[in-house]
Amino acid sequence: MRYRAGTYDVIVIGAGHAGSEAALASARMGCKTLLLTINLDTIAFMPCNPSIGGPAKGIVVREIDALGGQMGYNTDLTYLQMRLLNTGKGPAVQALRAQSDKAFYGRMMKQTLENETNLTLKQGMVEEILTAGGRASGVRTNTGAEYEGRAIVLTTGTYLRGRIIIGDVSYQSGPNGQLPAMKLTDSLIDLGFSLVRFKTGTPPRVNRNTIRFDHLSVQPGDENPLQFSFRDDIEKRDQLSCYLTYTSEATHEIIGENLHRAPMFSGDIEGRGPRYCPSIEDKVVRFKERPSHQVFLEPEGRDTAEWYVQGMSTSLPEDVQIKMLRSIKGLEEVEMLRPGYAIEYDAMVPTQLDLTLETKAVPGLFTAGQINGTSGYEEAAGQGLMAGINAALSVLGKEPLILDRSEAYIGVMIDDLVTKGTTEPYRLLTSRAEYRLLLRHDNADARLMEKGYRIGLLPLHRYERFLRKQALIDLEKDRLVNTKVQPDDARVLFAGMDVDQPKMTQSMAQLLRRPEVNYEKIRKIRPPEMELSEEVTSQVEIDFKYEGYVKRQEAEIERQKKLEKKELPVNISYASIRGLSNEAKERLSVIRPRNIGQASRVEGVTPADISVLLIYLESAGKQEVAHG
Amino acid sequence: MRYRAGTYDVIVIGAGHAGSEAALASARMGCKTLLLTINLDTIAFMPCNPSIGGPAKGIVVREIDALGGQMGYNTDLTYLQMRLLNTGKGPAVQALRAQSDKAFYGRMMKQTLENETNLTLKQGMVEEILTAGGRASGVRTNTGAEYEGRAIVLTTGTYLRGRIIIGDVSYQSGPNGQLPAMKLTDSLIDLGFSLVRFKTGTPPRVNRNTIRFDHLSVQPGDENPLQFSFRDDIEKRDQLSCYLTYTSEATHEIIGENLHRAPMFSGDIEGRGPRYCPSIEDKVVRFKERPSHQVFLEPEGRDTAEWYVQGMSTSLPEDVQIKMLRSIKGLEEVEMLRPGYAIEYDAMVPTQLDLTLETKAVPGLFTAGQINGTSGYEEAAGQGLMAGINAALSVLGKEPLILDRSEAYIGVMIDDLVTKGTTEPYRLLTSRAEYRLLLRHDNADARLMEKGYRIGLLPLHRYERFLRKQALIDLEKDRLVNTKVQPDDARVLFAGMDVDQPKMTQSMAQLLRRPEVNYEKIRKIRPPEMELSEEVTSQVEIDFKYEGYVKRQEAEIERQKKLEKKELPVNISYASIRGLSNEAKERLSVIRPRNIGQASRVEGVTPADISVLLIYLESAGKQEVAHG
Repeated sequence: MRYRAGTYDVIVIGAGHAGSEAALASARMGCKTLLLTINLDTIAFMPCNPSIGGPAKGIVVREIDALGGQMGYNTDLTYLQMRLLNTGKGPAVQALRAQSDKAFYGRMMKQTLENETNLTLKQGMVEEILTAGGRASGVRTNTGAEYEGRAIVLTTGTYLRGRIIIGDVSYQSGPNGQLPAMKLTDSLIDLGFSLVRFKTGTPPRVNRNTIRFDHLSVQPGDENPLQFSFRDDIEKRDQLSCYLTYTSEATHEIIGENLHRAPMFSGDIEGRGPRYCPSIEDKVVRFKERPSHQVFLEPEGRDTAEWYVQGMSTSLPEDVQIKMLRSIKGLEEVEMLRPGYAIEYDAMVPTQLDLTLETKAVPGLFTAGQINGTSGYEEAAGQGLMAGINAALSVLGKEPLILDRSEAYIGVMIDDLVTKGTTEPYRLLTSRAEYRLLLRHDNADARLMEKGYRIGLLPLHRYERFLRKQALIDLEKDRLVNTKVQPDDARVLFAGMDVDQPKMTQSMAQLLRRPEVNYEKIRKIRPPEMELSEEVTSQVEIDFKYEGYVKRQEAEIERQKKLEKKELPVNISYASIRGLSNEAKERLSVIRPRNIGQASRVEGVTPADISVLLIYLESAGKQEVAHG
Repeated sequence: MRYRAGTYDVIVIGAGHAGSEAALASARMGCKTLLLTINLDTIAFMPCNPSIGGPAKGIVVREIDALGGQMGYNTDLTYLQMRLLNTGKGPAVQALRAQSDKAFYGRMMKQTLENETNLTLKQGMVEEILTAGGRASGVRTNTGAEYEGRAIVLTTGTYLRGRIIIGDVSYQSGPNGQLPAMKLTDSLIDLGFSLVRFKTGTPPRVNRNTIRFDHLSVQPGDENPLQFSFRDDIEKRDQLSCYLTYTSEATHEIIGENLHRAPMFSGDIEGRGPRYCPSIEDKVVRFKERPSHQVFLEPEGRDTAEWYVQGMSTSLPEDVQIKMLRSIKGLEEVEMLRPGYAIEYDAMVPTQLDLTLETKAVPGLFTAGQINGTSGYEEAAGQGLMAGINAALSVLGKEPLILDRSEAYIGVMIDDLVTKGTTEPYRLLTSRAEYRLLLRHDNADARLMEKGYRIGLLPLHRYERFLRKQALIDLEKDRLVNTKVQPDDARVLFAGMDVDQPKMTQSMAQLLRRPEVNYEKIRKIRPPEMELSEEVTSQVEIDFKYEGYVKRQEAEIERQKKLEKKELPVNISYASIRGLSNEAKERLSVIRPRNIGQASRVEGVTPADISVLLIYLESAGKQEVAHG
């Protein structure tokens, strides 16, 4: 029997990484919000890798934090390990990555949701989106509860008609043996939406007590761990180590012998999987020449011996999984606690969305996360946050918030999804961003905190903290520009170096731009009046050091925009163009775009690929001239 | 495809409260043990009341601990609140009850299982019990894994063909939205077992932040909390409070108006529910005269705002549940986080078992817990422990361990189940034990630790701790018997009391037996040479104080055994016998036993009922004489 169960401004369906952010954003912006989940015990669950961050993704987490979202803070409160990746490289590709305490992460997110003002959390399985006058008007659950809402945010993850596949065994299931949502798909089809079938996978878990660690290389956390959230109240946590091992020839042989039993090759899997998170059988088939692949052994929590085997995602049969694992160094006698599996689910074709993540066909209905064809907790959280923000803004009668590709990775992702669509689970990569020297993890606050505050999501005290930090950065930059250093004083910077010594008076800023100099050195010549935090001084240094690179990149993007109208020959052989990624070769050969502009919009073709194409066209032109 | 997945001594199916104990017992006794569970994330899960212990059940937990089981220790490590119940009454009915941190309890049990030597933990859904030559020989999972085992312990809880019912909505599900075990029932039927359909239920959960606590009576934990386990290494924990409120007339009206939508009355529920844990609608219907029922509000964990509403178990529709809750004082504006539900499941007819919990029809196959027709975590754990012990003993070629009704509540329970069977989910009650003055929670170690040690389950150091304690008790008792006190010295014990003063020299033991005297007082006259712990002195006191009662009870049991052959008239009107429990009236009216002996074996008829019947027969005899 149906019954009227309540009226809300915003209703969020699903309490995973997308739904949690959406609900918190909406409630914090003052909207009366309802969050419905199939099971209250799997809030913000990580059915796959117990990790948050990494290249591109880590920057998204900082962006979420800067806008007023929860993922970064929740990670800081619960991590097992924190590492800054690519420290040897420039700041644009540096990224934080945390090893998460899976159960603790979920409990803390649940607690946050339970205690949020304006937010009502409930267990319930939504079976139907209700509409009135062509607009989304509410939802109905399997217990007959009808909730009215002015905006609905749908974040179904992998639950929509979920099916788990392990070798030749398959059964209806949400992730990790949860009840799947079997009926909501029909409601979406009735509303006129196009759905696709995607799949993703997860590796087996093993018992730490059965791993031989003695010959594996250890991956400890950072000695001075950074944090995701722009806050002062985070306590450093004790850290656990991860370990690195490799698949062996025997592993690859076992996989080769059992490929006929792999559902992705036998045809049992209908859904398309994520290219950038391939199963081990996929990697072995696609990269035949590689004798081994990396395998990371990672703890799943402080109070469990269950470990994650990163790199061994698989849907091979259980018996093959055990053999595969035991062919890996350190895992010779490992006990598998649970097998890896693939999961198929329904997803929306994301080109049906506006840049606000509102569906074009049903105003008031927003979708976010894996339902939009992405993979990854961070991608989900970033979309969830934006959908929650825009759902709230629409209810409040305010202008939407749309992040440009030059402002945030979140903007890149949403633009990619709604303009290009995706034919497989979409993952953020640094190569997808044209402006990646601007989209750094260190400046996410400068890029986004004002926006977060203006829309009423980021609290004033957090915005004020940012303003104080920014003021200190500006003051120090001014000081460095305006403080002149005599050549005699500057010489200490280059003591013992075989470089040109300064011959004229220079500003401290000019000196800092030189590669041999860093902030720490320049500081010693004329220290600032007050002690500055590392957060401030690193920003000052980056701003001066990379000023030139950033300007050059912007100029190049301008240049590329002009060049991209250049025509591509019809008979071009992409497969033979050196430097083009395999994905680009494959896609371009099929789609055969007419010009560079079109080519750049083809899914999976990166700016790097476009550069290669431009060089190719240039040299092809020269050859024609030479031969002509 | 089927594959040989391994060979074990003992295979345990299910990792709830029964399965966890069974697997730990078997592994600790030296058997290579496999534990299979449908989901590794719900180990030792409490889908219902987040509480361990209470009358009779608390004594079982101590018994489990004394034999070398885990439940008591795991509770001591994780509790939110600890209370000794019935402190105003005698030691026989005193019992410990802990409020559990539900998620923490499960995590700690999982960790214990993961780290136990000889024990392999795996996720897997068993679909078939394999046999060879009429004996259980292994199991097959849904992924085709075939594990060989010399003994199998089946602890399926409420997963066997589980069905959740909320009002007019029902769906296949294990507890708390887990995948149910749909195929194993067929395997049991194929093996010739008779199954019954039982049901149990759980109340809604609410958000603490929406409870008005100001007029509710608080139930704090004990200031000096006891512990379940007989150990020295338990740290006291900070405690949370529970709260007491009551249903109102409005609550009962709402239920009355909606009874036609209650599945238990509309016929949608096929399974028989637990009499001693009735749903609120059942209570309202059965006890029409009562204007209100107690409702306890209890936290489910330290890091969640989710609270349990004890006393409001229900399978009424969701909309009725919300109305019911809001008619209760303190819950006027409560937000329900998840609805209560009933769950139906398949259970074995337990008369198919030996006293060892081995099935008679399939040697090597043991069953324990809810599958045997019980309800309650403690009942499950007690059976699981015994099934695990006896499975291990049978593999080791040793004599089984069977606890007598006079030795343990566990013995009472198993004897009840396998000799009487049960027509509804069986719950332990103090009234089920004839020897309950012997089966106290304070002496569980004295009753059972030697047995636990002899079978190789209780570790030596724990047994030695018990022996030291027992030696101190014996020494002190000897001292009290042999230390004489002059009347002049003894007078201080009765200072200011209007009682007979001692006129002769008496032993300290004689004086202690007097009701006005306790150990603390007698101690002051002649203190022992060394300081004795409260654990020792309380035992000394109980032993002297209740010596007489225990002897009298034993004599009465002797007397009752003789009397119980007395015949019962065929036309007796049980309904009109005052003092007989409602259950006894109902059952005896149907079964109409020929004599007291037969009556005493009828399920649900307690020793107290038998006393009432004997008194009735006696007075009926007198009346006949008077009228004759």
